[in-house]
Amino acid sequence: MIYLDNSATTKPLPEVLESYMKAAETYYANPSSIHRLGSEAERLLTKSRNMVAAITGVKANEVLFTSGGTEANNLAIKGIALQHINRGKHMITTQIEHPSVLEAFRSLESLGFEVTYLGVDQEGYVDPVDIENAIREDTILLSIMSVNNELGTIQPVQEIGKIAQKFPKLFFHVDHVQGLGKVPMNVRQSGADLCSVSGHKIHGLKGTGALFVRDNVSLFPLLHGGSQENRKRAGTENLPGIAAFAKALRLIMDKEQNHLPELISLQKYIRHQLSQIDSLLINSPVNSAPHIINVSLPGFKPELIIHTLAQEEIYISTKSACSSKQPDVSSVLKACQLDSSRTTSSLRISLSYQNTVPEVDQFIQALKEAIIHLETSMGR
Amino acid sequence: MIYLDNSATTKPLPEVLESYMKAAETYYANPSSIHRLGSEAERLLTKSRNMVAAITGVKANEVLFTSGGTEANNLAIKGIALQHINRGKHMITTQIEHPSVLEAFRSLESLGFEVTYLGVDQEGYVDPVDIENAIREDTILLSIMSVNNELGTIQPVQEIGKIAQKFPKLFFHVDHVQGLGKVPMNVRQSGADLCSVSGHKIHGLKGTGALFVRDNVSLFPLLHGGSQENRKRAGTENLPGIAAFAKALRLIMDKEQNHLPELISLQKYIRHQLSQIDSLLINSPVNSAPHIINVSLPGFKPELIIHTLAQEEIYISTKSACSSKQPDVSSVLKACQLDSSRTTSSLRISLSYQNTVPEVDQFIQALKEAIIHLETSMGR
Repeated sequence: MIYLDNSATTKPLPEVLESYMKAAETYYANPSSIHRLGSEAERLLTKSRNMVAAITGVKANEVLFTSGGTEANNLAIKGIALQHINRGKHMITTQIEHPSVLEAFRSLESLGFEVTYLGVDQEGYVDPVDIENAIREDTILLSIMSVNNELGTIQPVQEIGKIAQKFPKLFFHVDHVQGLGKVPMNVRQSGADLCSVSGHKIHGLKGTGALFVRDNVSLFPLLHGGSQENRKRAGTENLPGIAAFAKALRLIMDKEQNHLPELISLQKYIRHQLSQIDSLLINSPVNSAPHIINVSLPGFKPELIIHTLAQEEIYISTKSACSSKQPDVSSVLKACQLDSSRTTSSLRISLSYQNTVPEVDQFIQALKEAIIHLETSMGR
Repeated sequence: MIYLDNSATTKPLPEVLESYMKAAETYYANPSSIHRLGSEAERLLTKSRNMVAAITGVKANEVLFTSGGTEANNLAIKGIALQHINRGKHMITTQIEHPSVLEAFRSLESLGFEVTYLGVDQEGYVDPVDIENAIREDTILLSIMSVNNELGTIQPVQEIGKIAQKFPKLFFHVDHVQGLGKVPMNVRQSGADLCSVSGHKIHGLKGTGALFVRDNVSLFPLLHGGSQENRKRAGTENLPGIAAFAKALRLIMDKEQNHLPELISLQKYIRHQLSQIDSLLINSPVNSAPHIINVSLPGFKPELIIHTLAQEEIYISTKSACSSKQPDVSSVLKACQLDSSRTTSSLRISLSYQNTVPEVDQFIQALKEAIIHLETSMGR
């Protein structure tokens, strides 16, 4: 099997599953219980939180564990909006954010907030000048993804952060779900007040993730109740999931520090191979994130390519999984003003550190055969 | 070890962990991915949902998987409030609900909603007449727990449901987190429009739970994004957690159907034994849920009892884990108008189907010794 759909989700590492099992079997007490079993569970929780903080370069009390990237994004956006409603009701984002960001903003429009959705260029880049021009007296939140999930476009987060810092009333949120472990970003230096990450995109487990919340930034919790997670996210902590997330984060950051050049080479290789296919257009920018490459095959139905490849046990995707059951157009590519022959025929190949050159060769060969096969059956 | 803190959390069953591991290792693809791996994951998701629906007697599209009981309660309460804000802004609950219910309501007060917190009698029972009297033209939600988490008091849910059904504009939410598997409740017959349950209270896993939402009841999602969970709860599904929840539910309902008399006997036995201890007062009503018994030891600091018992590897708790690190008074017992010598000295013993008579004997013996030991050290 050749799995090239790592931006949709990744296979959990055995070490991660081990951490999960150990915590679930041994440290099953409620960390809030005051007896010894509870204290032992709490210690593992603290250890996991400290580890995540140390790896990320934030303080332990700035780490807020969530049930995943979607919760982290929703908590950041709705949490700021509902908590700081008296400061202003205007917010800014881009047209190519993940659905969990875009739909969170749309839901706030229904509650009386106003949102500016900035456009992007043909490669998916947002212009920092557009951002600065869009900031108003009543703007309370700016939300930008570090890496686009369909194109791999890397936004100039640090430059945007510098702009954001000029406006003391403005909070800056970075959706770093696709970038984590593949596109180095220092949360502190980025200027982000809030930053979302997810476990299952880094060979961790579904149902795990985190939101980094800068000290002294107050949020309206989505989940009220007990005083867990610094009073910002109630609910019995998913300790096995948290321990597994910490483990997955440690392992992926190790890869980022020591094996990023290999991933970049692999992407260059696949890009070169793809560029040799006549009917294919590459949508991802040259300097995209090293694990994503998006292409279009005008005239082909992407589902047919995907199903043909799946017969060879090769797995790629169309657009993002979160919108893959919607109609065929990629709204990200549409926002890049690509024509409809491209927006309706896109494929996303997404790599992990585990993929190899022979796998890529096999995929390229199978893709070429699929194209010929489909061209023949279409009578071309 | 004798674990008698099962209302805080339970030990996951090996079969549940097996279901988790199998899904995490084999069905790791994103259920939203359109390739074959994605479809296989989606099939397991559908199977789990159908199983939960069949066991609970609801329809598959009425099952909404969440990250736990706290999320289910918050989604029910905030989801109804924000979606139906134009119908009215008044809501009703009781003073002894779980913090995830009470704090969710308090957060809505800060957004302009009005909440009536009904009192209860000395045993924690809410009077259905009080409920009916509190319902107004602009009341949109009534939220009542089936079983109180500290006292085990079983509310007359079905009778309350009949009242709720007289008011077509009113939604009825039942927090069934403590009752599930121990206090039989038919979701349909209860008249509940929404019903919360949690995985880790039934030997399932932390980070899992569900909200049953009656057909055609619309909610403002806490998590917007993709179209997962009938568009009511976005985010990549935690498929291993969901499969594990379905397994845990099946196993606990099997216990409820076949072994409830044993649990009831065990509780009667422990209640009788406790009633023989002079300095001890029993707070739980005689007909409480079969797994909870709450007592007070006026004059004793409950933490000291707990720590003394923990030295013998016997684990019980004070009040609920979710408020156990707050000051010493039990707000539930206070709402029952018990005097402060009782509200500050309460202990909760909570059973599972796995506990045995010899364990209870050992606990009672250790408790008696702890009392004598502490009396001596206090110089009585």
